[in-house]
Amino acid sequence: MAKRVTGPEIEKLIQLLAKVPGLGPRSARRAALHLIKKKDQLLGPLSHAMGEAYDKVKICSRCGNVDTVDPCTVCTDDRRDQSVIIVVEDVSDLWALERAAAMNVAYHVLGGVLSPLDGVGPDDLNIRGLIQRVGEGGIREIIIAVNATVEGQTTAHYITDQLAGLEVKITRLAHGVPVGGELDYLDEGTLTAALRARTAI
Amino acid sequence: MAKRVTGPEIEKLIQLLAKVPGLGPRSARRAALHLIKKKDQLLGPLSHAMGEAYDKVKICSRCGNVDTVDPCTVCTDDRRDQSVIIVVEDVSDLWALERAAAMNVAYHVLGGVLSPLDGVGPDDLNIRGLIQRVGEGGIREIIIAVNATVEGQTTAHYITDQLAGLEVKITRLAHGVPVGGELDYLDEGTLTAALRARTAI
Repeated sequence: MAKRVTGPEIEKLIQLLAKVPGLGPRSARRAALHLIKKKDQLLGPLSHAMGEAYDKVKICSRCGNVDTVDPCTVCTDDRRDQSVIIVVEDVSDLWALERAAAMNVAYHVLGGVLSPLDGVGPDDLNIRGLIQRVGEGGIREIIIAVNATVEGQTTAHYITDQLAGLEVKITRLAHGVPVGGELDYLDEGTLTAALRARTAI
Repeated sequence: MAKRVTGPEIEKLIQLLAKVPGLGPRSARRAALHLIKKKDQLLGPLSHAMGEAYDKVKICSRCGNVDTVDPCTVCTDDRRDQSVIIVVEDVSDLWALERAAAMNVAYHVLGGVLSPLDGVGPDDLNIRGLIQRVGEGGIREIIIAVNATVEGQTTAHYITDQLAGLEVKITRLAHGVPVGGELDYLDEGTLTAALRARTAI
C-alpha cells in the first residue's frame, strides 16, 4: 500500500496470507478483512488451530504422512491391510486416494519424484524407507500411484528396479478414460492406453 | 474424509481454512499441507500474526476503518486534508482508493449499503456517524464513492438527503469507460454515461 492506512500487525497478516497457495495479494486483503469481521467465529479459532498444528504436527517416520502422532493414524490402523502399500508422491495424493475409499491399505509418501533437472535424486526422496519396509517382510503388494508424468514414470521404474530382488508384487494404476470424461477432450496418449487396455463388456 | 487419515487438529485446521474467502474445501487441504511443509517460515508466523491481529484489531470509532489504534492511522494523519471525506461501503474500498493514491483525504466507511430486501436499513449502516462528523463542522466536501449498483445509488441518494441542510459540497465518482477498457465489452449504461459526460480534448 502506498501510504499506511492500517496497523502494521494487519499489514503483516495480509503479507503472510498472500503466501498461502490459492490466495494472492488481492485475495489476501479480502481474506484478512473477512477474518477481522468474523473475529470471534473465524480469526480466533483459526489462529488457535494454526498454533495447535504448529505445536503438534509430525511427519510419520514410517510412511511420510502428516499427522499429530508418529507412527501415523494410517500406519497404526489394524483394520487396514498393512501388507499392501500404495506409493504416492505427496501427502495430498494419499488423502485423495483415501477420499476415493477404494482400498483399505497402507501408504508410503515419497515426498516428490525423481527430477534430475531440478536436482532431485533418489536420496532426496523417501525411497530407502520403502525398500526397508518391504525388506522387513510381510508386504505382498506395492501399488505405485505416482502421477502419470515423465518424472512420475521414471520414479516408478526406479522403484521397480530397486525392489527387483524382493518377494513382492509390484503394480501401477491403470491408464484410461477418466470416469465422466469426454473422449473429445482427451489426449492421444490416454486414448491409445484406453484402447489397448480395453475390457470385455 | 471418509476415514480418519490424519490428526483431529489438522482436520480442524483444514475445516477452518475452507471458510476463508478464496479457499474452498479442496484448496484448504492444499493450503494446510503447504503451511505444514513451511512450518517455520509460514505456519508459525501466520499463527502469530493472526493472534496479534485478534488481540489488537480495532474498528475506528470515527471512520470505521480497520486498524490497531482508535482513532485510526488515516483519521489522525495530519498530512491529509481532513476537510474532505470519501464515503465508501467497505474497508476494502477505502484500501483500494488508497492504492490509487489519487487523493490525500479522510474516509468514512458505511459498512454496507441500504438493501430493504436483505433487511439493511439506515440504522444498520454508519450513516449517523457521518452526519455527526459533518455537523461538527470543518468538512467542506463529501465524495460519495459507493459501488455503482442500485443499492449503492439508493444509499448515495439517502445520504445526500440527510446532509441536505448542512453546509457541505456533495460529489460522487464519475461514470465512464474504465482506463484500458474495451468499448465492445462495456454495457450500454456505461457507454451512455461516458458519452453524456464527454470532455473536450
